[in-house]
Amino acid sequence: MRASNYLFSTLRDAPTDAVVTSHQLMIRAGMIRQISKGLYTWLPTGLKVFRKIENIVREEMEKAGSLEVIMPSVQPSELWEESGRWQKYGPELLRMKDRHGRDYCLGPTHEEVITDLARNELSSYKQLPMNFFQIQTKFRDEIRPRFGVMRSREFCMKDAYSFHISEESLQETYDVMHKAYCNVFDRIGLDYRPVLADTGSIGGAYSHEFHVLADSGEDDIAFSDSSDFAANVELAEAVCLKEEADQPNQELEEVFTPNCKTIPEVAEFLKLDVTSTVKTMLVKGQDADEKDTIVALVLRGDHTINELKVEKLDGILSPFEFANESDILEQIGCAPGSIGPKGLKEKGIRVIADRTAATMSDFCAGANKDDYHYTGLNWQRDGIDHDIADLRNVVEGDPSPDGKGTIVIKRGIEVGHIFQLGKQYAEALNATVLDENGKAQVMQMGCYGIGVSRIVASAIEQNFDEKGIVWPESIAPFDLAIIAMNYDKSEAVREECERLYSELTAQGLDVLLDDRKERPGVKFADCELLGIPHRLVVGDKGLAKDQLEYKSRKAGENQDIARADAVEFIVNAKK
Amino acid sequence: MRASNYLFSTLRDAPTDAVVTSHQLMIRAGMIRQISKGLYTWLPTGLKVFRKIENIVREEMEKAGSLEVIMPSVQPSELWEESGRWQKYGPELLRMKDRHGRDYCLGPTHEEVITDLARNELSSYKQLPMNFFQIQTKFRDEIRPRFGVMRSREFCMKDAYSFHISEESLQETYDVMHKAYCNVFDRIGLDYRPVLADTGSIGGAYSHEFHVLADSGEDDIAFSDSSDFAANVELAEAVCLKEEADQPNQELEEVFTPNCKTIPEVAEFLKLDVTSTVKTMLVKGQDADEKDTIVALVLRGDHTINELKVEKLDGILSPFEFANESDILEQIGCAPGSIGPKGLKEKGIRVIADRTAATMSDFCAGANKDDYHYTGLNWQRDGIDHDIADLRNVVEGDPSPDGKGTIVIKRGIEVGHIFQLGKQYAEALNATVLDENGKAQVMQMGCYGIGVSRIVASAIEQNFDEKGIVWPESIAPFDLAIIAMNYDKSEAVREECERLYSELTAQGLDVLLDDRKERPGVKFADCELLGIPHRLVVGDKGLAKDQLEYKSRKAGENQDIARADAVEFIVNAKK
Repeated sequence: MRASNYLFSTLRDAPTDAVVTSHQLMIRAGMIRQISKGLYTWLPTGLKVFRKIENIVREEMEKAGSLEVIMPSVQPSELWEESGRWQKYGPELLRMKDRHGRDYCLGPTHEEVITDLARNELSSYKQLPMNFFQIQTKFRDEIRPRFGVMRSREFCMKDAYSFHISEESLQETYDVMHKAYCNVFDRIGLDYRPVLADTGSIGGAYSHEFHVLADSGEDDIAFSDSSDFAANVELAEAVCLKEEADQPNQELEEVFTPNCKTIPEVAEFLKLDVTSTVKTMLVKGQDADEKDTIVALVLRGDHTINELKVEKLDGILSPFEFANESDILEQIGCAPGSIGPKGLKEKGIRVIADRTAATMSDFCAGANKDDYHYTGLNWQRDGIDHDIADLRNVVEGDPSPDGKGTIVIKRGIEVGHIFQLGKQYAEALNATVLDENGKAQVMQMGCYGIGVSRIVASAIEQNFDEKGIVWPESIAPFDLAIIAMNYDKSEAVREECERLYSELTAQGLDVLLDDRKERPGVKFADCELLGIPHRLVVGDKGLAKDQLEYKSRKAGENQDIARADAVEFIVNAKK
Repeated sequence: MRASNYLFSTLRDAPTDAVVTSHQLMIRAGMIRQISKGLYTWLPTGLKVFRKIENIVREEMEKAGSLEVIMPSVQPSELWEESGRWQKYGPELLRMKDRHGRDYCLGPTHEEVITDLARNELSSYKQLPMNFFQIQTKFRDEIRPRFGVMRSREFCMKDAYSFHISEESLQETYDVMHKAYCNVFDRIGLDYRPVLADTGSIGGAYSHEFHVLADSGEDDIAFSDSSDFAANVELAEAVCLKEEADQPNQELEEVFTPNCKTIPEVAEFLKLDVTSTVKTMLVKGQDADEKDTIVALVLRGDHTINELKVEKLDGILSPFEFANESDILEQIGCAPGSIGPKGLKEKGIRVIADRTAATMSDFCAGANKDDYHYTGLNWQRDGIDHDIADLRNVVEGDPSPDGKGTIVIKRGIEVGHIFQLGKQYAEALNATVLDENGKAQVMQMGCYGIGVSRIVASAIEQNFDEKGIVWPESIAPFDLAIIAMNYDKSEAVREECERLYSELTAQGLDVLLDDRKERPGVKFADCELLGIPHRLVVGDKGLAKDQLEYKSRKAGENQDIARADAVEFIVNAKK
């Protein structure tokens, strides 16, 4: 591509509404333009990156045995009525009427359409497993579109759907797709984690999210520094930090802690480390007879409660709710700041200790009496009856629950999601095949999404510096920029540029020849802003010594190379 | 691709609502499925063809210097208000409201969006010419979607838009795009014609349609059998069939022609050939003072009037309208069946003769008296004052207006359209750049469309037989089918199939290995229905003689080839 025929549209400044780096840089580098809230045009530079990602995704889907299809964007309401989502789906589903007054929506996802296809086209278990994918523009009418293409209304997704006669077959394809997703992100060259996820509203049993790690991410990901373990912080198992409790060493003592209402206040007042205190929280529960109760949860003073984990415990209300202060006062006789595990059982309150709290000894806890705490408290010695469960959020430094390495927590951007949907949609739409015995069986189903446009943004969040984008080689808009000094005036420069351009293009490289009548500073800045991985400068001064100037966008040091070696040098540098 | 992992979805019969061949075959070959009126899912076989066409289109657009972009499908009403089309565009424009109640439409075309982009991103004549294209799903809410993807509501178009500082630059890019379109259809291997077209409602000055010739086409195309000349029948120039009139040979005679009201009746009654008669039609006109008049149009008896041409003549009402019978009776004194050119001038009626009619001699015409005609009439000798113009439709056998060859008329399917829009949209949206003198100039604009999904259907209309589709090599879903006989039972067959599959795939061929447990008849029928250009049958009987059976979908004769030569044979056959 010759720069003189290309649309740069680079900007010195980003618009003020662009708050995340990728949004700012995509505007500044001339990759996208907004035409209406959350609706973007992809300019040539943006689309080149987009297409490279799309091709990697397509290749890996085909390798995984998925068959490409394209389903309509506009979907009839009838199918959504069958699945029950016409009513359930919120205003993100853009509904509309055609000229005959029939109801349609603009597809945010295609479970209904593909299940309809499957029930019509698949009739026998012999055709299974079957896996379809499409790469397509979706629409989700976000209430507040933001962060550029990261949360736009129109976006491009690769969505895949698989159909199976059994759970085992679903698991097999799920594993193949898990691997294919890893291949996609490995090939692009991103730092990512497949994360065990909550299945959320889409339903189904088992799911992984794929997160690109970046500070601007909206999710906290806990992962091991030495293994594949990764999970959303809310879902990561918090292991016990100590194998068993030490023997008691201190006497139990009730101490006066005036006006100390929080753990830090108590610890400071008693000159204790917070890790030798516990906090006790009272939440609403139900007993076996469905009578309302209060349940006490005990955590080490520095740990935080994980509501998702708590909700899943027997005898605890879901959604999670703290007990009323008036009920606490009535049943225990003190304010929440002075609650502790000792003596609660006797008041009819069940105690559940977090795994780590349960292995503490000689700890400090509320004395269930305003302005008093215990020190030197011990579970067994002091007769505190309790259950044990995982109640807390993991923190950095925790051992990884798979026994390998230590937990690190970083922010992640979700760019992929794979689900085992089970029979949910197939049952609703009665999508069956005949099994080996000639009996109709509802199919098992998996679904698998990758946000193609979102990958572009997340790759930038992970790869930029103060000058602009620093693309991974695999998805850079151009492999190389040849920057011509005085292209219009120097015949020697022109000739050398043309030679390099044609020889490097013939080597399969995507080359930008900057032949514009612009100052060198403008050309260098554009090249760096666009994040082109390799750069050759061709000028009369260098040519006089048979030299060109090379610079890698990543390494950043200028380097003189001999004209004769240039093509080979670049081809090797690109590898 | 192994057939056992593939979705065939072939059908013996097409649904009854599929009336054109391509629609029937696309359903039967498992290429598309309708999910709602005019909304189709592209199944794997259909999409493979689609992608091959898409790739050819993209490559040729890039070669032509067009830059790929993607604009949103959902477009804000504001831009359409600016161009005036929000009101003007009919119900084909699907309008909708987002969750905040703002008006949007689902884009059937992108003149407004691209012009908005151009006015924002282009500021100087130095950036021009600039040419953008996108390959994208469009929506047109057709009142009666039909013919499968030929006239569906969702369809894929390549649309391109170019911007220029001058008409000359627009013409240059227009010519480049004209050539690029020819390259696309040449590479696909279709019989097509670029046809000089009427610009219709989209406006603009100059335009060509690209038509694939096929009996099911909706337009009549007149083209030369020996040159590039082609035009819509309505627009094709009809040349004069004779250089000049012969000398009069017969006496002028008024003959009694009782009850002869039509040319065939008169010719039969007088035992004349219709080509020696003329028909005279009276149409509404206006004189220089805008007073209503009647104008007489004279054509050879076998020719038909072309209303588009007539409307464009000075002094004729547009839209075209025949004179009232009562006015004729009043002004001339006879019924329309007896009108002729002689004597009209004297009654204040202007006479315009078609070019060919004007070179006739000794002809027969109405005598302006009920039940009487003249024979032996001659324009000059008999003092018939007249103008001459092109009034008629071309017919097969006419000389081509470019002087090369003879006109042939065939039906065509419009698959592409290129326009010189001029300043229409740029003016409405005030899209200007600074010219050499620093003055703001409204840009000139061209637009260029190709119906990617429609090409799939039109290629079938041109390439099928009673067994199914006969794809051109360039866009076949697979290059070759290897049909295994007893794949599951014969190890020799399996081994040979696998060898061929891996060696031919390595040669870059797109191979379908039919390893299904199906009867040979089923496999042969699917292979022919899908239109796979080359077929190899691998069976124990042949293998015993080291032979394979080859068949070309086009040539159709079985042919034994030696195993050892098979790969080379296929690679050559594919060329």
